Amino acid sequence: MKQLGQHLILDAWQCPSDILNDSERIRQAILEAITAGQATLIDLCVHQFSPHGVTATATLAESHIAIHTWPEHGYFAADFFFCGRGEPRKAAEVLIIALEARQTTLKEFKRGMEMAAETHPSHPLTPDLNSQTCLV
Amino acid sequence: MKQLGQHLILDAWQCPSDILNDSERIRQAILEAITAGQATLIDLCVHQFSPHGVTATATLAESHIAIHTWPEHGYFAADFFFCGRGEPRKAAEVLIIALEARQTTLKEFKRGMEMAAETHPSHPLTPDLNSQTCLV
Repeated sequence: MKQLGQHLILDAWQCPSDILNDSERIRQAILEAITAGQATLIDLCVHQFSPHGVTATATLAESHIAIHTWPEHGYFAADFFFCGRGEPRKAAEVLIIALEARQTTLKEFKRGMEMAAETHPSHPLTPDLNSQTCLV
Repeated sequence: MKQLGQHLILDAWQCPSDILNDSERIRQAILEAITAGQATLIDLCVHQFSPHGVTATATLAESHIAIHTWPEHGYFAADFFFCGRGEPRKAAEVLIIALEARQTTLKEFKRGMEMAAETHPSHPLTPDLNSQTCLV
């Protein structure tokens, strides 16, 4: 069975703190990333935190993009979840450039593959979560 | 350095297809998950696709929850990204129960750790993405 969704997880460091605290710049960067990723925007929420930090979630016809910034650390986390159409890697590259990240880590996950052999049923009322901890 | 965010990735199978296509039920499930996770909602977008499928993104004071459903496969993907406060695992358990998933895989990622030794700088204009493909 083919995967249902492609999920890129981006961690980006060494960004200028003023950029990571500029909600309008982040809004524009997300819109550019959506265009580059050939995705279709359904809804965009951009929220400015006090004293610093911005969170934005873009609901897409393809799934979603989310970004959370920590200006005080020069860091942002972003997720690009695309199903079927679109180019999430191009969207990620646009965001990296727009927010001037100098150090990045990008991981790709295939979502919605057939259950792997090691997973097992869980009772609905006491979910037996098959957990794994990864360091990104 | 401590992690900045806790990110749970949930893949859930064997859900009733009518539930995964019921946008109002999914809206309520997300609201219950946010309460269980002791999180604070900033904005919620729930979108019904035609002929089937629902996407929802919740922007939180703690970061975000996103869900995408494939009723035709009895599958949904959900992400719980929390910083600082909150209990993302409890939020995930509520969603699993509300959407009657009988098979689940949950992975946890620590977001915003210090750069690992194997990562390297990338030029802003030609981002050299340090990529890794994982099967979820």
